[in-house]
Amino acid sequence: MNEDIFKREKVKPMEVWPNMTVNELIVEMGNSGSFMSGMLSKAVDTYEQMIKENSYIFLSLSGALVPAGLNKVIIELVNRKLVNSIVTTGANLVHDVMIAYGGNFYKGSPTMHDDKLLKQKIDRIYDVLVSEDEFQSKFDEPLLELYDDITNAVKSRTLSISELMNEIAKRIPDKPESILKACYKSNVKVFVPTIHDSVFGLQAAIFNRKKPGKLNVDVFKDLQDIWDIRAKEEKASAIILGGGVPKNFVFQSFYFNNKMLEHVIQITLDRPETGGLSGAPPEEAVSWGKINPNGNKIVLVSEVTMAFPLIAAALIERLEKKN
Amino acid sequence: MNEDIFKREKVKPMEVWPNMTVNELIVEMGNSGSFMSGMLSKAVDTYEQMIKENSYIFLSLSGALVPAGLNKVIIELVNRKLVNSIVTTGANLVHDVMIAYGGNFYKGSPTMHDDKLLKQKIDRIYDVLVSEDEFQSKFDEPLLELYDDITNAVKSRTLSISELMNEIAKRIPDKPESILKACYKSNVKVFVPTIHDSVFGLQAAIFNRKKPGKLNVDVFKDLQDIWDIRAKEEKASAIILGGGVPKNFVFQSFYFNNKMLEHVIQITLDRPETGGLSGAPPEEAVSWGKINPNGNKIVLVSEVTMAFPLIAAALIERLEKKN
Amino acid sequence: MNEDIFKREKVKPMEVWPNMTVNELIVEMGNSGSFMSGMLSKAVDTYEQMIKENSYIFLSLSGALVPAGLNKVIIELVNRKLVNSIVTTGANLVHDVMIAYGGNFYKGSPTMHDDKLLKQKIDRIYDVLVSEDEFQSKFDEPLLELYDDITNAVKSRTLSISELMNEIAKRIPDKPESILKACYKSNVKVFVPTIHDSVFGLQAAIFNRKKPGKLNVDVFKDLQDIWDIRAKEEKASAIILGGGVPKNFVFQSFYFNNKMLEHVIQITLDRPETGGLSGAPPEEAVSWGKINPNGNKIVLVSEVTMAFPLIAAALIERLEKKN
Amino acid sequence: MNEDIFKREKVKPMEVWPNMTVNELIVEMGNSGSFMSGMLSKAVDTYEQMIKENSYIFLSLSGALVPAGLNKVIIELVNRKLVNSIVTTGANLVHDVMIAYGGNFYKGSPTMHDDKLLKQKIDRIYDVLVSEDEFQSKFDEPLLELYDDITNAVKSRTLSISELMNEIAKRIPDKPESILKACYKSNVKVFVPTIHDSVFGLQAAIFNRKKPGKLNVDVFKDLQDIWDIRAKEEKASAIILGGGVPKNFVFQSFYFNNKMLEHVIQITLDRPETGGLSGAPPEEAVSWGKINPNGNKIVLVSEVTMAFPLIAAALIERLEKKN
Repeated sequence: MNEDIFKREKVKPMEVWPNMTVNELIVEMGNSGSFMSGMLSKAVDTYEQMIKENSYIFLSLSGALVPAGLNKVIIELVNRKLVNSIVTTGANLVHDVMIAYGGNFYKGSPTMHDDKLLKQKIDRIYDVLVSEDEFQSKFDEPLLELYDDITNAVKSRTLSISELMNEIAKRIPDKPESILKACYKSNVKVFVPTIHDSVFGLQAAIFNRKKPGKLNVDVFKDLQDIWDIRAKEEKASAIILGGGVPKNFVFQSFYFNNKMLEHVIQITLDRPETGGLSGAPPEEAVSWGKINPNGNKIVLVSEVTMAFPLIAAALIERLEKKN
Repeated sequence: MNEDIFKREKVKPMEVWPNMTVNELIVEMGNSGSFMSGMLSKAVDTYEQMIKENSYIFLSLSGALVPAGLNKVIIELVNRKLVNSIVTTGANLVHDVMIAYGGNFYKGSPTMHDDKLLKQKIDRIYDVLVSEDEFQSKFDEPLLELYDDITNAVKSRTLSISELMNEIAKRIPDKPESILKACYKSNVKVFVPTIHDSVFGLQAAIFNRKKPGKLNVDVFKDLQDIWDIRAKEEKASAIILGGGVPKNFVFQSFYFNNKMLEHVIQITLDRPETGGLSGAPPEEAVSWGKINPNGNKIVLVSEVTMAFPLIAAALIERLEKKN
Repeated sequence: MNEDIFKREKVKPMEVWPNMTVNELIVEMGNSGSFMSGMLSKAVDTYEQMIKENSYIFLSLSGALVPAGLNKVIIELVNRKLVNSIVTTGANLVHDVMIAYGGNFYKGSPTMHDDKLLKQKIDRIYDVLVSEDEFQSKFDEPLLELYDDITNAVKSRTLSISELMNEIAKRIPDKPESILKACYKSNVKVFVPTIHDSVFGLQAAIFNRKKPGKLNVDVFKDLQDIWDIRAKEEKASAIILGGGVPKNFVFQSFYFNNKMLEHVIQITLDRPETGGLSGAPPEEAVSWGKINPNGNKIVLVSEVTMAFPLIAAALIERLEKKN
Repeated sequence: MNEDIFKREKVKPMEVWPNMTVNELIVEMGNSGSFMSGMLSKAVDTYEQMIKENSYIFLSLSGALVPAGLNKVIIELVNRKLVNSIVTTGANLVHDVMIAYGGNFYKGSPTMHDDKLLKQKIDRIYDVLVSEDEFQSKFDEPLLELYDDITNAVKSRTLSISELMNEIAKRIPDKPESILKACYKSNVKVFVPTIHDSVFGLQAAIFNRKKPGKLNVDVFKDLQDIWDIRAKEEKASAIILGGGVPKNFVFQSFYFNNKMLEHVIQITLDRPETGGLSGAPPEEAVSWGKINPNGNKIVLVSEVTMAFPLIAAALIERLEKKN
C-alpha cells in the first residue's frame, strides 16, 4: 500500500553552473519539478507541445507589458510563427504605436512623488515613466491623422475593432520594436476588445466630436471572426499573460460548442479566492466547456515580465536544437 | 526632535462587545487605526465624506459579484441614492438579468471536479454554481427576444452600449434582486464597456448572424456620455471594486482636462508589483492627472464580498443616525 | 443527472440595513455563502462549534497584532474562556509587556521616510510607530529587572520558555490592555517558541553577558508541556492568525500519535504556492496526521486585524444570545 | 522643468535568442529595468556588489526549500564562498539530514487527496511527497543515535543551538546533497533559531523523556555568537529567502548598535499590508537602525525556487568571467 510513492519520480535537486543557458536551467528546474520552478518548467514543456501538436496559439496580453519592455520578446515569437493571434488590452497597443512613432519609456521608481510628476507632465506606470508631451506628439497627433486617413479609405464603413487595428497597423512606421507592425507583417490577427478603454478610445471620441459619423466601429463584430478561427483550426491553445478581458475574450470564444481550448498556460499573481476571472485557474473553465479536461493546465504564479522571457528563451533554444 | 511622535494619535486597542453594530466595530477599528482594520475604517469615513461633499459617485464592479450575492447590497446603495453611476463587466449584468428572469446560483466548492461538472452541464465560478439549462432558459432565450424587440423599437439605429443596456433594463422583469432594474428605476446610469466580453456579446453575435444589420452598437459612443457627466458634476469620486476595465474606464474619463476624481476607494487583492492597472494604487493615477493629489486615496487589501458589505452597512448606519 | 444542482442550497443575496449587528451581517454573508464573505461566516460557525464541542482551543498569533490594536479583542476571548492556550511570536509579547508598563503605539503611515524616522529614533511597523525612548524605559529597563528578580527567585533553575513567560506575567503591572496578564489571571497557557527572536532574547543575551549562568532557558522543554495538553484534552482545535512558527508549533504537537486537531480556522494573506507553511491550507496537515480529515478547515484569505474582530464580535453575540 | 525625464535612462526592450545564458537574459531584463524583471536584474547586481565589497553574507532560508530541490543551488554558493552564514528554519535541515542518510522526496501535486495520503503514510508539502517510513528510518532513528552520541561527547554540557547543529553536521554522512555537511566542511556557520519547531525538537523531547538531563540546549546562547560576527566583520549583508523567523533573526542582530546591514535582497510573495515581518520591505528596518539607509534594498516579489536559481546562475557566470 505504501509502495505507490516509491514508484513516483524523485525530486532531483537542481544544479547551476557558469554559462548555463536559460533552457538548461529550466530543465534543471524540471528535474526538481516542485513549487513554481517545477511549474515554470512545465510551462515550457507545454508551449513546446502546443507547437509540436500544431495548435493554433492565442497569446493574451494584459498589464503594461510594452512599457516594461516585453515587446521584443513577443515580436520574436511572432516572427518565429510561435503565436497565431494576439488578444490585448488597448493600452499595450497605445504604447506600441507610440514606440512606432519614436516615443520612449523611461526608468523610474514606484515610490516617486506623483504630485510632482503631475506638475512635470510625467505619467507613471509602476516604475516606468512616460512624457505627456511625447505622448501627444508621438501618439495622439499621429493617431488623429490615422483616423482621418482610415475613415476616408474605408468610406466610413462600419469596421470591427480588429479591422480598425489592421488599418492602423498598415499605416504606422515600420519599427522593429512594434508588436502591431510585426503582427501585420506576419499576418497575425490582433484583437483589442477594450480599444475604447484606452487612449485609442479617447482620441476616437474626440475625432467623432469633430467629424461626426465618420468613424464607425461595431462592438460585437469581432466575435464572429474569432469563432471562424475556432471553426477552421483543428486545435487551439492559449497563453494568458495576466488575465483581464483578454483572457476572458479568448476563453469565451470556446463556449457554446464542442471545440475546446486544448492547453492553457496562465501567468499571473492574481488570486483565485476573489472569484474573479483573472486569478481563476483554467480548471474552472473546464466546467464551462471552454477547456479540454485532458489538456495541460499550467498556472504559473509569477509576475509576467520576469517569467515570460524565460519561457520564450527556453522554447526557442529547444526549437533551434531540433532543426 | 523626538517629540513629534508624542503629538501623534495613539493606537487605541479596538474593543468588541455583544450585539455591537457593524458601524460600532468599524469605529473601534478606526480607533486602532492600523493595518487593514484602520483602512476599512478610513474607507467608511471617505464614503461618508463623498456623500457629504455631494460628490457624484461612480461604482465600478469587477469580479463575479452578483453570483456571490452582492447584488442586494449594491441595490440598497442605489435605492438610497448613494451611487450615481455603475461601471461594470458584462458578466455581472448577464448574471443580474438571469436573476431577473428567475434564474439562480447555487452553493458549491472551489475543489469540485470540473470534468464531472462539465458532464452535468454545471458551470462553476469559484464556489458558486450555475446550471447551463437555467442559463439558457433564463438568459439566452429571453435575451434573443429582447434583442429582437429592441432593434425593432430603435429601428436599428446605432446605439451606445449604455443605451442598449438601458433598453434591456426597461424590458426585464421587475425583480428586487436586479441591479440593472434598480438602476433603471433610480435613473442611475450603467456603463458596460466590455458587454461583448460576456454572453451579451456571444448572443449578440448569434443574433447578428441570424438577422444581419439590425443590432448596431458603437464601441466609442459611451465616452462622450461619461465626459458629459464629468463636465456637469462639480465633484466626482469613485469606488472601485476589484479593478479591471471598469476601473480604468472610470479613471480614463478624467484624463485630458483639469477636472480630476476627488476621492477614490479601491478594494482589491491584486498587487501593485505587476504593473497592471487593477493593483495599481490610486496615487499612480495622480501623475496622469486623473485623481486629485489632495483627495483621499483608500486602498483596502481585501476580497470584495467580505469588505464591501461592511462598508455599506456602516455607512447607512451613520447616515440614518444623522437624519 | 442534472438535478443534483437543484437540490443544492441557493445563493441568497446578502442584505444590509441600518444598525445591523456584526453577527447579523455575518449571517447574511452566510446566506450568500460564497467567496470570502461565505468563508467569514463559516469561520464564525466553526468557532461556535469548537465551543459547543468543548474543544480545547489554541490561538496562534503571528504578525504585529498588538501594535495594531488587536490586544483587547484577544483579551475579551481570554476573559470569556473562549481560548485555552496562546502560541505567539516573541514580538507580540514584547509589545504587550511594553503596554503593561505604560508604553504606547502611535499612528503613522506606510510611506513615511524611514531615514528620517531613524534620526528621530522612531521605529515603524507598517503604519504604526513606536518611540525608541519609550521602548527603552517601558520595556528594556523593566525587563532587565524582571530577569534579575526571576533568576533570583528560581535560583537559576533551568526553565522552559513558558515557565519564564509565566514568571514575567506574574510580575508585570496589572493593565487591562495586557494579553499576558489576562492569560496569567485566567490560567491560559502562553507558549512563545521564538522568544529569542525578539527583544526578550536580545535583552536576555545582554543580561547573560552581565550575569553569566543565571538565566537558563531550555529550548526543548515546552514540547512535553504541549504534548501533555494534547494527552489530557479530549478534543483540541486551533485558530491560526497569520501563520509562521506559532502555526507550526501548534500543528507539530499533533504529529506522532493518533490524536489530531479537530477544527482549524486559518486567517492569512500568505499564498499556498510558495510551499511554505504559513500559506499552506490545513488540508496539507491532514496528510501528516496532524488534523482530522473530517474536521472543519477554514482558510480565510484576509488580513487578520480586519477579519478577526468580526469573528470575535459575532461569536460573543451568538453566545450571549444563548445564555 | 519637463526635461528631467529625458535625462533618464530609457527602457530598452529585452531580447531573447537561442542558447542565451541565464546571465545574458538577466542583463537584458536589466536593460528593460522595469517591474519584476528589472528587480531580478537588480538582485544579481546587488549580490555581485556584496561580493565585490567583501560583505559578510547571511543567507536566510524559510519555506520548504530543500524538499523543493534548492539544496544544491545553496551548496554551490557555499562551496564557492559566496555565503558566510546560513539562518534557517528547522524543517529545512530536518529534510537535509534525511537526504544525508539517503532519504528522498517524490513528485506529487497540490490537489492530491490528503485523507488517502494519510492512510498511505505519505506526507505532503505542496506538490512534494515524503514517505513516513523513510522519514523514520532515514531521520528519526539516526537522529536519536546522534543525540545519544553527542550528549555523551559533550558530557551533557549546555550547548547553543548552533553548537548542537555543528555536532550533528560533523556526524552525518558526507553526501554532496547536504547543505549542512557542505557548511560544516566550508566552515559556514548555521543558525537554526527554530530547531524546536521541527522534528529535531520533537525527537529531542522524546530523547529527553528517555534520558532526562542529558541534552541541554539554551535558547539564548546563539545571540552572542551572531553579535560577535557583527562585531568582527566590517560589512554585512543579507539575502532573505521567504521571510519568517530566519529573516527576523538576522535583522534583529543588527539592532542595538551602530553597525547596520549594508545590502538586503529579499525574495517573497508575502505582502507588506499585513504588517507582518515576512512581507515587510527592508526600508521599514531602516527606521529600526537595522539596515543602512544608503544600502541596496531589493524586494523581489516572486516564489523563491523560481527566482533564486536564476540569481545564483547569473552570479557565478559573472564571477567566472572576471577570473
